[in-house]
Amino acid sequence: PALTHLDAAGHAHMVDVSAKAATRRKAVATGAIIMQPQTLEMILSGAAPKGDVLATARIAGIMAAKKTADIIPLCHPLSLSSVTVDLAPNDNRIEITATVTTTGATGVEMEALTAVSAAALTLYDMCKAVDRGMQIENIKLFHKSGGRSGDYNAA
Amino acid sequence: PALTHLDAAGHAHMVDVSAKAATRRKAVATGAIIMQPQTLEMILSGAAPKGDVLATARIAGIMAAKKTADIIPLCHPLSLSSVTVDLAPNDNRIEITATVTTTGATGVEMEALTAVSAAALTLYDMCKAVDRGMQIENIKLFHKSGGRSGDYNAA
Amino acid sequence: PALTHLDAAGHAHMVDVSAKAATRRKAVATGAIIMQPQTLEMILSGAAPKGDVLATARIAGIMAAKKTADIIPLCHPLSLSSVTVDLAPNDNRIEITATVTTTGATGVEMEALTAVSAAALTLYDMCKAVDRGMQIENIKLFHKSGGRSGDYNAA
Amino acid sequence: PALTHLDAAGHAHMVDVSAKAATRRKAVATGAIIMQPQTLEMILSGAAPKGDVLATARIAGIMAAKKTADIIPLCHPLSLSSVTVDLAPNDNRIEITATVTTTGATGVEMEALTAVSAAALTLYDMCKAVDRGMQIENIKLFHKSGGRSGDYNAA
Amino acid sequence: PALTHLDAAGHAHMVDVSAKAATRRKAVATGAIIMQPQTLEMILSGAAPKGDVLATARIAGIMAAKKTADIIPLCHPLSLSSVTVDLAPNDNRIEITATVTTTGATGVEMEALTAVSAAALTLYDMCKAVDRGMQIENIKLFHKSGGRSGDYNAA
Amino acid sequence: PALTHLDAAGHAHMVDVSAKAATRRKAVATGAIIMQPQTLEMILSGAAPKGDVLATARIAGIMAAKKTADIIPLCHPLSLSSVTVDLAPNDNRIEITATVTTTGATGVEMEALTAVSAAALTLYDMCKAVDRGMQIENIKLFHKSGGRSGDYNAA
Repeated sequence: PALTHLDAAGHAHMVDVSAKAATRRKAVATGAIIMQPQTLEMILSGAAPKGDVLATARIAGIMAAKKTADIIPLCHPLSLSSVTVDLAPNDNRIEITATVTTTGATGVEMEALTAVSAAALTLYDMCKAVDRGMQIENIKLFHKSGGRSGDYNAA
Repeated sequence: PALTHLDAAGHAHMVDVSAKAATRRKAVATGAIIMQPQTLEMILSGAAPKGDVLATARIAGIMAAKKTADIIPLCHPLSLSSVTVDLAPNDNRIEITATVTTTGATGVEMEALTAVSAAALTLYDMCKAVDRGMQIENIKLFHKSGGRSGDYNAA
Repeated sequence: PALTHLDAAGHAHMVDVSAKAATRRKAVATGAIIMQPQTLEMILSGAAPKGDVLATARIAGIMAAKKTADIIPLCHPLSLSSVTVDLAPNDNRIEITATVTTTGATGVEMEALTAVSAAALTLYDMCKAVDRGMQIENIKLFHKSGGRSGDYNAA
Repeated sequence: PALTHLDAAGHAHMVDVSAKAATRRKAVATGAIIMQPQTLEMILSGAAPKGDVLATARIAGIMAAKKTADIIPLCHPLSLSSVTVDLAPNDNRIEITATVTTTGATGVEMEALTAVSAAALTLYDMCKAVDRGMQIENIKLFHKSGGRSGDYNAA
Repeated sequence: PALTHLDAAGHAHMVDVSAKAATRRKAVATGAIIMQPQTLEMILSGAAPKGDVLATARIAGIMAAKKTADIIPLCHPLSLSSVTVDLAPNDNRIEITATVTTTGATGVEMEALTAVSAAALTLYDMCKAVDRGMQIENIKLFHKSGGRSGDYNAA
Repeated sequence: PALTHLDAAGHAHMVDVSAKAATRRKAVATGAIIMQPQTLEMILSGAAPKGDVLATARIAGIMAAKKTADIIPLCHPLSLSSVTVDLAPNDNRIEITATVTTTGATGVEMEALTAVSAAALTLYDMCKAVDRGMQIENIKLFHKSGGRSGDYNAA
């Protein structure tokens, strides 16, 4: 195995996917943002219970999935069939799950991982005035299906 | 304290910073991507020792810092005085540090955190063909100075 | 019927179109910007009769159609086969018609409506120094064809 | 008076604002989207009362305000101090008000008008599956203050 | 002298301009696209004499100037006071001149050069169906003033 | 032959490609940036021999190829199968070659030409502190294949 994003001289390029079939593909990525329990309480209560904070993070994740090829230099631009961002508040954290599907020649792992990252950053932004010590943790590919390389599930 | 990004009705808005002075501000964010030692070995050796992989991730981080207000819904657009992304390969991980400065009315925490996230995602992208189990960990604000709220250093 | 852009919990998501066939689709949207007759006169006469004002608005509309998925949070990114923006000056107004076609899994209503909106905003921008009271009116879907839901024509 | 966005030859250009002072400026724009009363009912009731539909439109308006210089060809890029998008559901319509402030050399009318347009388009997008006949109406500048040309209030 | 965009280790970074004063700066860049005389004839005659082809290229140049920091990785984002793109058709070529001004901490050479490049590319695009052999030539900085390094004029 | 990007009235539009088959297409564009030999020496030697300068320019070219439809007003947005940017330092210049492939309804000449332009501009940016007189020369289409109009090779 080699790093496919480098050519024989070690130079970055966007790899050729023209020989790959356009098949239905799916990727699920997960991650979390850890915060003070009081911060989470503040998000979940108040004037807009579970309101605009979570909605804004969901929208940020969905929109970032569409910008993936603009953020990640060697990513192929591609159409997306669906994007879902789920936020599960839990004690001292919000667990983030992004699910992306496409019918195309490349997988959508990067789109799912980018959606999780943007949702986490947005939650940080919205709560940073009360909790600067939040941490974004454990962003990873959880599941991948479709394409020649077969299914993948995180251990 | 309250969530400043929500108004009294709980609706998201971009908070008014017109009363804040334009001062010199700095933020440092850190994070890491964990990988198989062999994956790191592959990045550091070969045709382009420490070559385009790390350079591409640095560029991705710098460019993402400039896109922060486009990725994070309630972030203020602002000029940046400098952006640096440092990558420190170490055993089974690459530690990422982004430093951003501005002279402006708002801090640049989100720019630094976004740069770290984009660099990490780019490293994932470039190595995913050989190591799908990589994880992005511990993205947080490490240091912040300038502005009315005083200095901050991660515990 | 339900709001398809919300899931069962009421959360926004980008709906799954992977089961929809890629067919030829067309959408026509219309709208107008109302202005003082003297403002319209100024656009149509002078050094560049019907010149750069209308050309700039046409270009703005076409380029905005391509940015639709970046402006409308839950819109699917898609390729466009053609975009036309027609401007018909008339007495105290400029009527705007945008026609967009694609071969894809989703309709292009939003692209056509976005093109009309951007052309209208651009006309406002170019003439605001002489006429701040201009109004953008009656932006709507005029015609839609292709796709499972059949043809639509405005009443 | 002349169209300032055209030079003496009638060619479009971005006008020189370097002689204008950076002062505090504010603009308020308004507009509405007209819909079937049942459509509005659907937005306001259900699983997410007043939930993600309105939040998504607010976010879209705020983000579009930041993209104004990218959508309107001759607009100056500028920093924004605040952006607020208010949505007032009312019988057969949602009234949209966007308020934008800056400290800069140019006004923010176009940012406010663009925010209203994007919020309206997003509401159309989210409800189009149940009501294709919605119309966007009466987008105009409602108030403007700051800058050399003095205050403006819609008649 | 050294390459300021690299740090001591040779790594790319966005250089720190926070110590530089915000002064009025100007840059003029020039270039040309060479074509068959018949191609130029086609642009200048016909239904829209000197019409939308030149207007479209001017708009493309102006809009690209605003996107410079998004296209050139280490460019600082900055506000622009004015952008002008002049097109001078001449025999077998169109000479392109872009003039950009700002009041800021960095020069606007890259914005002017990017405007020339985008205008040239747009002319290529609009005429490529009749003349694939066009060439873009001699893009360079023609004049620069403002800032600590003094005036520059091309030899 | 006529300028396809204008309609019968001379107005710019995005031409309809819905009748064109989605075939495999390739375009190669070339160009060069001319500089002082000492400038080239500085790029090739030093702390990062052939390091981040060339890598940054490659990345800029690849990312710009993906932004082509956002930079060139009448370009169709399309997926790209591969993008490669090669930089050949040589005496007093760096020769730039960009190769782009797609499976789509339109050619990718503009993507290849845009990649060359952005790589050249980035090299200018990174070296301008030591050599303001650099010139970008001879950007042209070198090869094109696929599509109805047959192969093209520069004379």
